[in-house]
Amino acid sequence: MRLRLDLAYDGTDFFGWAIQPALRTVQGDLERALATVLRTDAVRTTCAGRTDTGVHARCQVVHVDLDLDAESIPSLVRRLNGLLNADVRVLAGLQVPPAFNARFSALWRRYCYRIADHPNAIDPLLRRHVLTWSRPLDIDRMNQAAQSLLGVHDFAAYCKRRDGATTIRELQELSWMRDSGGRLSATVRADAFCHNMVRSLVGALIMIGEGTRPVDWAAEVLAAKVRSSWVNVAPARGLTLEQVAYPEEALFAAQAEATRRVRT
Amino acid sequence: MRLRLDLAYDGTDFFGWAIQPALRTVQGDLERALATVLRTDAVRTTCAGRTDTGVHARCQVVHVDLDLDAESIPSLVRRLNGLLNADVRVLAGLQVPPAFNARFSALWRRYCYRIADHPNAIDPLLRRHVLTWSRPLDIDRMNQAAQSLLGVHDFAAYCKRRDGATTIRELQELSWMRDSGGRLSATVRADAFCHNMVRSLVGALIMIGEGTRPVDWAAEVLAAKVRSSWVNVAPARGLTLEQVAYPEEALFAAQAEATRRVRT
Repeated sequence: MRLRLDLAYDGTDFFGWAIQPALRTVQGDLERALATVLRTDAVRTTCAGRTDTGVHARCQVVHVDLDLDAESIPSLVRRLNGLLNADVRVLAGLQVPPAFNARFSALWRRYCYRIADHPNAIDPLLRRHVLTWSRPLDIDRMNQAAQSLLGVHDFAAYCKRRDGATTIRELQELSWMRDSGGRLSATVRADAFCHNMVRSLVGALIMIGEGTRPVDWAAEVLAAKVRSSWVNVAPARGLTLEQVAYPEEALFAAQAEATRRVRT
Repeated sequence: MRLRLDLAYDGTDFFGWAIQPALRTVQGDLERALATVLRTDAVRTTCAGRTDTGVHARCQVVHVDLDLDAESIPSLVRRLNGLLNADVRVLAGLQVPPAFNARFSALWRRYCYRIADHPNAIDPLLRRHVLTWSRPLDIDRMNQAAQSLLGVHDFAAYCKRRDGATTIRELQELSWMRDSGGRLSATVRADAFCHNMVRSLVGALIMIGEGTRPVDWAAEVLAAKVRSSWVNVAPARGLTLEQVAYPEEALFAAQAEATRRVRT
């Protein structure tokens, strides 16, 4: 059966999602735990958003094909959490239709980028996922600039190019707010993101927020369609993958199908 | 002059507040940093709430007497933060009247205790200050039991006794709520707390919340006025000192006095 697993992790001590020899990665830890529980050695997982080194997730979605009954899912989840280190947790497991693909079925991904731009807003308890910025940021300028980036565009200027991959994306939301603790957070949502895209967008908006660049600079960079060395990629620490959305039918066809089989 | 410093810390890697030979403590780190910046070796700090090993603070208040001008406070704070490890931050510095005492001038202290009682509510990014509890907790039972503890009482049953210290305290608030992420948090406010009091109260309420004890057990334990071995002290990890309140005149007389001196 095809199983969907929802994961959360503190990315600080991982070299990102993707499995790499001799480095600790989330995929590496998860596949090793799955292999141990299922007493097999050929488990291959696919995720919705391949997070970079140091990037966190509150809800990363993964699919994997396993020889398993639906009734065994809760015990599998418990055993995985027993094996995994405390910085990664399996939140839930759900049987999905064979056509469900964690990466390609996704409608959109939502990230959050968090910044403390004032000494009073620094919270040592949140230091692993909130960036400290030593100059005050003007949220109105950042939101104004963000507005000019929304919609379908070629985001090549904000992406680390990979051969053959498109850089045309629909940026559906990019907005900053300040919470009661005085911390800034950006909500960034798109159908999909190219490599380094969220952190490059945030990096450009930080420069605008601190006054190093004018408000219309973000749109100018976008229009140039070539990666600009003037755009700083914001540090991984502040970035968290928060949510991945799927069409309902992609998720629930499995249950309908299972019910049908029982009735026949 | 007398200086008030507001601190925040992640208590995970500290053996509590109070200085101890050969162990890392918040007071030890702070006094060493102060001594380095001020090139002296006799700095003695007093805090509002002597947190135990593993207990956190979002706003611990400290006073210290230093040979310093008010204008040098911002640079002192910057230099302290440069020396201190990232798990403790000085949020602010303020000149206070000589009569101000971080411990004895305080009107009340407010703590928060956080629990994730469901696998879905576990967030690895918050694992250093949220306790994981493996059984579901009934918040209504916990709030009902909490109500019966409010007011002025002898809390000896919920305290680790220290010779000569009173255990009569005014518990001003003790209420549980569940946040949007499904996590429980208790707000606990009193004029002052005896040793282990917050964690013993929380420990008793957890037993009531999971159904191990009846709702009226919390008041029964209180009425017995002797420390009960049946009360579990809840783990330090979930506890954070959130706020200490002072009367306005204790804080602002200094500025008024300084202004007066300038005018003369």
